[in-house]
Amino acid sequence: MNEFELIDVIVAGFGDTATGRWLDVGPGDDASVSTLPPGTQLVSSIDTLVAGRHFPGDADPADIGFRAMMVSLSDLAAMGAEPHIVLVALTLETADPAWASALAGGMAEAARQTGATIAGGNLSRGRLSLSMSVHGVVPAGTAVLRSGARPGDLVYVTGALGGAAAALENGFAKDDLNACFFRPAARVDLAPALRAVASAAIDVSDGLLQDAGHLAAASGVCLEIASARVPVQAGAQRHHALQGGDDYELCFTAGSPPGFPAVCIGRVVDGSGVLLDGEPVANSGYQHFA
Amino acid sequence: MNEFELIDVIVAGFGDTATGRWLDVGPGDDASVSTLPPGTQLVSSIDTLVAGRHFPGDADPADIGFRAMMVSLSDLAAMGAEPHIVLVALTLETADPAWASALAGGMAEAARQTGATIAGGNLSRGRLSLSMSVHGVVPAGTAVLRSGARPGDLVYVTGALGGAAAALENGFAKDDLNACFFRPAARVDLAPALRAVASAAIDVSDGLLQDAGHLAAASGVCLEIASARVPVQAGAQRHHALQGGDDYELCFTAGSPPGFPAVCIGRVVDGSGVLLDGEPVANSGYQHFA
Repeated sequence: MNEFELIDVIVAGFGDTATGRWLDVGPGDDASVSTLPPGTQLVSSIDTLVAGRHFPGDADPADIGFRAMMVSLSDLAAMGAEPHIVLVALTLETADPAWASALAGGMAEAARQTGATIAGGNLSRGRLSLSMSVHGVVPAGTAVLRSGARPGDLVYVTGALGGAAAALENGFAKDDLNACFFRPAARVDLAPALRAVASAAIDVSDGLLQDAGHLAAASGVCLEIASARVPVQAGAQRHHALQGGDDYELCFTAGSPPGFPAVCIGRVVDGSGVLLDGEPVANSGYQHFA
Repeated sequence: MNEFELIDVIVAGFGDTATGRWLDVGPGDDASVSTLPPGTQLVSSIDTLVAGRHFPGDADPADIGFRAMMVSLSDLAAMGAEPHIVLVALTLETADPAWASALAGGMAEAARQTGATIAGGNLSRGRLSLSMSVHGVVPAGTAVLRSGARPGDLVYVTGALGGAAAALENGFAKDDLNACFFRPAARVDLAPALRAVASAAIDVSDGLLQDAGHLAAASGVCLEIASARVPVQAGAQRHHALQGGDDYELCFTAGSPPGFPAVCIGRVVDGSGVLLDGEPVANSGYQHFA
């Protein structure tokens, strides 16, 4: 199977997610062409997931594809953006059409759940890795940044944390936690409601304490977090929820109660950094090159 | 040096190319926010360049960065699009700040030459590879596709071919050809003029004959090419120009003479595929997984 035949297999795996209302030219030309809905800005992010580092290379390819898409879309959720188009750069070790088709199918499933359109991509040969370039839209001027938290705001998370880290620590031996790692949901479902209430937001990808630290630094404030209030995924432990990453729930601040389910875990005060139960914490969490 | 310090080094290397008129939120948040100029559509492409496959891993990092940016922007040039924003996903083996800074500097040089703004990126650890997600704009409805060539059009290329392939074949032993490989120019300078005249276009990345075959297939026509008319880079041979890739000039078709320097190499006729001096050619050129 040559490169162009394999591309056909992958695009077939994307199915109807490679077409969309705002996509004028999809996969197959030198580039895609899309139209932004009137009055919107473009919100753009890119992520690379490397086999053996971000996911086990021998995992189910549908899980790998699903997770890669959701992990990347999570950055849009953190901005309060709704998915527009995604570009998918695949670096594969071999031309295995069944494996590539399952990978594409997992990506399509995530795209379908979130309303994303797969507009194009690239296929290279090398060590297995996936780069996902994701693009969303917000009504002009409404993107939720990391920098808007103000003293007096409360701090929230959108769901239970720690499940993915616990699954990883267990070597994926406990079936009931594995979906936390392989089947995360980018919270783009919350985008309009988040834009309406949040003063700042970040997705919890590298661990709550570290990501809260990034939000605190960008806003020039201190986040006081009460560890007992942090919702812990059933089957995980509190340290997974505080320091483990990969859950892709959102941490946000707001001056008034959100109109959707979210758990208040603390408050914004003058100062800097993160206080956990009154104690300053280092930015512990996942780092490449650490 | 930790991950976040290394990101600061890289963003510093981007310099003023990480800011731009249409970029509202640049590197540092969960995602970038940009505004499209009024009346335009978004043109989007992604490329991955893998060390040892697309470039020698021991090359000058500034050359690697420059080439990666230009190779990726070339897909925008082939659509007649002008650069808007670029996202850069770097997978690096080690946290070497001098190397990373030089890489970023090479990317910035290419961005500056083409008017692209580096809006954000991602840093991962693994085998050296670069994924570049590039986004341009065209006035709505004016993108140049591969599919518009019609019998009676003439076939053109925008410059001499074969230099990059000859440099690669020589193992980069001849200094005067190396710039063809490491310092290609994405022909985004031609974007408005190309939109005005071209019925179809493709960039010559995998070899003229193969890429002309893609254009012919997308348009449902035959491209007759006269080998003697194909401009060959000084120091290269004709087969480099016909079958070698990596030059990133454009091949386009037009029904009237272009208003910029371009060499007519043939014509569009009824039929399919590519005829070289009257003989059908297989789609010879570079393929991954071949």
